[in-house]
Amino acid sequence: MRRTPLAELLQNELERQDFHPRLPGYKRVYEAIRSAIVSGRLPQGSKLPSSRDLAQELDASRNMIVAAYDQLQAEGYVDSHTGSGTYVADAVPDGFNAKTMLRPAPLAQVQEEAVLSKRGGRLTVEQGFAAYEVQPFALAGQMDLLNFPIKTWQRVQSQVWRREDVGLYDYDTQGGYAQLKRAVADYLRVSRGVTLAAEQVLITSGTQQSLDLVSRMLADQNDVAWVENPCYWGAWSSLYANDLSIRPIDVDEDGMNPSAADFASAPPKLIYLTPSHQYPTGAVMSLARRQSLIDYAQRTDAWILEDDYDSEFRYAGKPIASLQGLAAEAGIHKVLYMGTFSKVLYPGIKLSYLVLPKQLVTPFKTALYDLYRPGQLHLQASLAEFIDQGHFTTHIRRLRQAYSQRRTLLLAVLEKSLHGQLSKIVVDAGLHFLIRLPAHIDDVELTAHCQSQGLSVRPLSRYYIGSTQARGLVVGFAYVDAKDLVESGQRLGHLIKAALEAAPHSTEKALYETR
Amino acid sequence: MRRTPLAELLQNELERQDFHPRLPGYKRVYEAIRSAIVSGRLPQGSKLPSSRDLAQELDASRNMIVAAYDQLQAEGYVDSHTGSGTYVADAVPDGFNAKTMLRPAPLAQVQEEAVLSKRGGRLTVEQGFAAYEVQPFALAGQMDLLNFPIKTWQRVQSQVWRREDVGLYDYDTQGGYAQLKRAVADYLRVSRGVTLAAEQVLITSGTQQSLDLVSRMLADQNDVAWVENPCYWGAWSSLYANDLSIRPIDVDEDGMNPSAADFASAPPKLIYLTPSHQYPTGAVMSLARRQSLIDYAQRTDAWILEDDYDSEFRYAGKPIASLQGLAAEAGIHKVLYMGTFSKVLYPGIKLSYLVLPKQLVTPFKTALYDLYRPGQLHLQASLAEFIDQGHFTTHIRRLRQAYSQRRTLLLAVLEKSLHGQLSKIVVDAGLHFLIRLPAHIDDVELTAHCQSQGLSVRPLSRYYIGSTQARGLVVGFAYVDAKDLVESGQRLGHLIKAALEAAPHSTEKALYETR
Repeated sequence: MRRTPLAELLQNELERQDFHPRLPGYKRVYEAIRSAIVSGRLPQGSKLPSSRDLAQELDASRNMIVAAYDQLQAEGYVDSHTGSGTYVADAVPDGFNAKTMLRPAPLAQVQEEAVLSKRGGRLTVEQGFAAYEVQPFALAGQMDLLNFPIKTWQRVQSQVWRREDVGLYDYDTQGGYAQLKRAVADYLRVSRGVTLAAEQVLITSGTQQSLDLVSRMLADQNDVAWVENPCYWGAWSSLYANDLSIRPIDVDEDGMNPSAADFASAPPKLIYLTPSHQYPTGAVMSLARRQSLIDYAQRTDAWILEDDYDSEFRYAGKPIASLQGLAAEAGIHKVLYMGTFSKVLYPGIKLSYLVLPKQLVTPFKTALYDLYRPGQLHLQASLAEFIDQGHFTTHIRRLRQAYSQRRTLLLAVLEKSLHGQLSKIVVDAGLHFLIRLPAHIDDVELTAHCQSQGLSVRPLSRYYIGSTQARGLVVGFAYVDAKDLVESGQRLGHLIKAALEAAPHSTEKALYETR
Repeated sequence: MRRTPLAELLQNELERQDFHPRLPGYKRVYEAIRSAIVSGRLPQGSKLPSSRDLAQELDASRNMIVAAYDQLQAEGYVDSHTGSGTYVADAVPDGFNAKTMLRPAPLAQVQEEAVLSKRGGRLTVEQGFAAYEVQPFALAGQMDLLNFPIKTWQRVQSQVWRREDVGLYDYDTQGGYAQLKRAVADYLRVSRGVTLAAEQVLITSGTQQSLDLVSRMLADQNDVAWVENPCYWGAWSSLYANDLSIRPIDVDEDGMNPSAADFASAPPKLIYLTPSHQYPTGAVMSLARRQSLIDYAQRTDAWILEDDYDSEFRYAGKPIASLQGLAAEAGIHKVLYMGTFSKVLYPGIKLSYLVLPKQLVTPFKTALYDLYRPGQLHLQASLAEFIDQGHFTTHIRRLRQAYSQRRTLLLAVLEKSLHGQLSKIVVDAGLHFLIRLPAHIDDVELTAHCQSQGLSVRPLSRYYIGSTQARGLVVGFAYVDAKDLVESGQRLGHLIKAALEAAPHSTEKALYETR
C-alpha cells in the first residue's frame, strides 16, 4: 500500500518512539504529530488527513486517531473546521519551545488519571529514564567493582564504627561531616581548580538530590533552564520534575553553543552544563565559550550549575580546570559546582557534593536539612578517612589506568573490524565513548539489534531533545571486564559494519515499499 | 509610657515571635500586624496609627514601620487613603485562610531577595524548624543511645559487607531491598495491624523523604492538605515547601476533629495525621473519628497519610491498630502508612518506610528512583538481618521498658514538686509528654526560662497554626539518662510551679506597666 508523505512521516516518528513502550496508542500518535509540528516538518496551515484515512494508512483504529486529534486540538496544535477538515494551527502553542517538546503526556497520569498529581505525573513520565543510563556494553551479569579496595573500605568503616562517637548516630545538621567537607575541598582545589573554602561544600545523598535541591532553591515553576542538547537525562528528568521550562542549547565540539536567538530570548534562571566532558558527546568546552557563558550569567543574573560528573577519568592531555574556578578568578560567583563519589567508588554509596557560592551556603544548608534531614555520618566519616588515608587517590589512579587500557583495547578491536570506517570517535575522557554514525543510520534500530545480541549500547539520537540528524552509539566500556572486551568488541564491530553497509540498501527498500 | 491597645497587641505579638530570630525588624512588625488581622484581633476597618506614632510607641525606627505598612498594603491587608490614614482592609486576602497564617515571609527571600526562587524561600523559612524538634529535656551533652546494641549492629553490618555481593554496591532500583521490605511487612502486619503485602512497602531515606515524595506525587501547588492543629512541624514544613494550601484541623482528646465548616469546605487532596499518638498532644484518635475520616476520604477521593512515627512506644494498654488496617478491612484503599527506624534505632540511620495502596506502588517506585536514585543496600540488608535475627524486637522491648521507667520516675518527681497542680498530663505513649498549663501562662516565656536553666522543653502554643489558647510544655524524657532525671525533673518542677504561682501577678504587672 502506498502511503501519503504524512503517513510516512508519522510512521517514522512512531518507530522512533519505541523507548516509551507503555504509552497508550493514541498518545503515541499524538506525540508523533505534535513532534512533527513543533519541529516544522509539518508546516503551519497544512491539512491533516481525515481520521478515517489516517487510521487506514497507519493500520490503526479510528478511535485512536480521533483521540489524538482531539488532544492536539485541545492543546491548540491543530484547528478543526467543520466540514473542511483539520489543519495545523497558525500559532503553535509555545512556538518552537523546547518545553513543549519535553512534555510528552506523563505516563502515569494517562494510566492513573485520577490518582496522581500533575507533578506526580511528571515524576513518572517515561518509565524509561533508566533506558538512558549507559550500561557496561557487555554485561558480565554483575557490576564491576574493578580495583575497588573492598577490604580497605571495610576496615576504614570498622574503625569509624569502633570510635563509638555518639554524634555520628545523629542527624547531619551541618550539610556534611566537617572532615569530609575539608577533604573534598582539598581534593577539588588541587585536582579541579575549584576555588573554595571547606564551608562552601555541601554533602548530599547523590547527584539527583543535588539537582533537586538546586532546581527548587533557585528556580520556580516555568522559569527557564538551559540544558545542553544532547543532554544528561538525569538532569533533564530533575528539571522536568520540578516543572522548569527547559530550553535545549545545541552542543558542538566546543561544548554548549548558544545561538543568537538563544541569547536574545528570555534569560534562564539556571544553566546546567557538563563543560569538562559533555554528556554524552564528550565535548570539552572551549575557553572562549566558558568565558562568554560566565559573562552572560553575570550579566543576566543566571546561575550556572557545573556538573563535573566524571572529571576523575581523563586519559590523555592536561585536565581542564573547572569553570567554577575560571569564574571565581574573575570575581564572578554565579557558578555552583557538583560532583559525586558514585562514579569513582560505587553507585550505592550515595554521597555527592555541591560547592556553593558563599551567599547560598546558609539557605542551602537549611533547605537540605528541612527537606531531607540527612544522616549517615558514619559513612561520611568513613569516606573522609578513606580520602585522608590516601586510598582515594590510589584508587582513582588505578581506575584511570585500567579504564584507559580497556578503552585502548576496545578501540583497537573496533578499528580492526571497521578499518577506517569509524570517522570520528570522541574518546578523550569518561566511562563511555561515542561512536558517531552517518545520519541515514537508524541508531535506535541498531541499538535494538545490539541488545538482541547481548550488547548493551545507547542510541545517541535519544539524548537529544527534539529531532536531530545526529546518530551514534554510546558505549560504556569502563565496567566491562577486559576478557569480555575482545569478543564483545568484535561482535559490536561486526554489527556496526553491517549497519553501515546495509543502510543505503535498507533506505531504498523502505522507499520502494512505501511509495 | 502608656501604650495604645494596638501597640500593646503588637508588642505581645512581637514577643511571641522570638522563634524567628533572624527575621529583619520590619518583617517582624509586618508579621505581628498581619497575624493580628488574620486572627481577627484587629478587625476589618480599624484604623492603624500613623507610622510615626507607632514607631514611637514600639520604640522602633519609623522606616521599619513604613516598610511593614508598605508590605501589608502591597499584599492587600491594609488600605492607605492619602490624608486620612491606614485602615485594615475590608476584604482580607485569603480571608481566614490557614494558608495565609502559614506563610510568614520567607526568611531567606527577605535576606537574599534576588537570589532564591519563591519555593527556595519556602524551603528556608524559619531557620527555626529545628526549634520545634523535641530534645531530651535535660541534655547530657550527648545523644543517648540507650540499650542500642552497637556491637551487634556492627557485627551484622560486617557480616553483610563480607558477603561481597556486588549487587549491594549498586543503586536500589526496587524501592527497597527485598528482604527488608518483607521484614517490615511482617513486623507491621503483626504489631500494627497493617494490611499489606511486602511489595507494597517502599523503603525511603527518612520521614522527610517520605513526606516529600507523597506531597509531590499526590498533590499540586495550591491543593488543599489537612493537617492536625497542633501539628508535627516536619510534616508542616514539607507540605509548605511543596506549596500546598494547608488547612489546620483542630485536635481534641479524640484526635483530629474536623468541624462542619471543614467538611463543607473544598475537600483536601491529602489528610496528614498521627492517629495512634497525636503529635505533640499524644491524643489517640477514637474509632468513631477514624471511621468517619475513612468514609470522608473515600467519598471525596482524598488520600490519608497515616504517620505512625513512634508507634513502638506504648507503655500501657493495648496498642491501637493502624487506621490503614481499619480502612483496608472495609475495602477502602485510600490510606498511605508511614513509619521510621530513626526513632527506634538511631536518627542518622535514615531508613523509613511507606506502605502504599497497590495502585500507587509502580508510580511511586519510579518517582523514588528518578528523584532520589536510592542506594545504601548494605545498610538496608544489615537492617533486614538485624530484624530477622530478632535483635529488633529485643531492642524495642528493652527501650519500651527503659522509657517507661524514665517516664514514671520523672512524673513522680514532677508530681512531688507540683503536688496536684498538674491537672492533665497526656502520657500514654511516645518519647515525650505534654504538661498542659492554664491559658494565662506564657509558655514561650517559660520555655526561655527553662532554657536559661539548662532545661530543653518546647512550648505547646508553638505547634499551633494560628492563635490558640492552649499552653503547655512538651518534655522529651526518653533520651534523658535516669541519673539526670531526678535533679533536672526537680528543677523543671520548680520552674513550672513558680510560673503557676507568678502568672497572675505578672499579668497584672504587664497591664500596669503598659496601660
